Amino acid sequence: MQLLKQRIREEGVVKKGNVLKVDSFLNHRIDTQLLDAIGEEFYRLFADAGVTKIVTIEASGIGVAVMAARYFGVPVVFAKKAKTAQLDDEFYSARIHSFTHNNDYTAIISRKYLSAEDTVLVIDDFLANGEATRGLLTILDDAGAKLAGVGIVIEKGFQGGGDKLRAEGIRVESLALIDSMDWETGEIVFRE
Amino acid sequence: MQLLKQRIREEGVVKKGNVLKVDSFLNHRIDTQLLDAIGEEFYRLFADAGVTKIVTIEASGIGVAVMAARYFGVPVVFAKKAKTAQLDDEFYSARIHSFTHNNDYTAIISRKYLSAEDTVLVIDDFLANGEATRGLLTILDDAGAKLAGVGIVIEKGFQGGGDKLRAEGIRVESLALIDSMDWETGEIVFRE
Repeated sequence: MQLLKQRIREEGVVKKGNVLKVDSFLNHRIDTQLLDAIGEEFYRLFADAGVTKIVTIEASGIGVAVMAARYFGVPVVFAKKAKTAQLDDEFYSARIHSFTHNNDYTAIISRKYLSAEDTVLVIDDFLANGEATRGLLTILDDAGAKLAGVGIVIEKGFQGGGDKLRAEGIRVESLALIDSMDWETGEIVFRE
Repeated sequence: MQLLKQRIREEGVVKKGNVLKVDSFLNHRIDTQLLDAIGEEFYRLFADAGVTKIVTIEASGIGVAVMAARYFGVPVVFAKKAKTAQLDDEFYSARIHSFTHNNDYTAIISRKYLSAEDTVLVIDDFLANGEATRGLLTILDDAGAKLAGVGIVIEKGFQGGGDKLRAEGIRVESLALIDSMDWETGEIVFRE
């Protein structure tokens, strides 16, 4: 998605440790018009996939997910980061390791809101090692839900999570796929 | 907003301790069509208020905020819950007490994304004691931003936060304002 890559080139800030900050249009300030275009682009890509539900994870995936869901005309279910009290059999759950924050958490989705009747598009703002996405896929499996594919705004391709999923036959569509980035020069190279 | 009140009556679950669960359409599963109608209603209410930015707080406010922002054609800035490392002079910050989780946290907004040029609509999914809203208003004050008003999806009026803000001359528009609710009978009474 050219519009998105242009914004990443102009405003993205590369930091040490594989960090890309896009706070000016996606992760703190949200450019609503761009987000709407992102939602529409996911619809263009997955319009024929029979999507009945969009699943994401709090917090930053929610904005993207609801904007896309408007085009699909389907509900969003966002996985929550569990508090201990919530870990009962009302929920599907998956343990997720965050490389960004160097900790583990448990993502949960109520059994009421995901079932074998669902064909799910998983949406998230970032994909790096793929831990969060894999957590959601585990939950989908537990629910017996069908996976339409994974829609990612920015994939950090050099961290390998996306390509591993693709190698397993999962359809992963990233609107901007970064093959390398350099925090010293600020250079960002996209995969064509 | 009749459509919203009807959903709260039909699907809202009242729990002990002033808790209203609306997980089936707002806080876990999101009814995208309803969320879009909520966004449009905020636009109807504040269309003439000169809004240049919508400010909310992660996580559950984000969906409502971006849907409303589409109608206004303005960006969203969502306050983040701070990690200690982020507490420097790049950010406006406010300490907020959460009665729901019985803890304190610090909400931050980068100085880059809020200024005296802004007329802000504060949006959130819930208003109870008003602590989160007050935190955001403190940040707006620090930034010198003008306040257009506060738009709330569900106000728990009996907890008093909204009326205190109104008594101070702040325009608070709640799409569903609950005057009382009873966890034993499940009864919910809306203010007319």
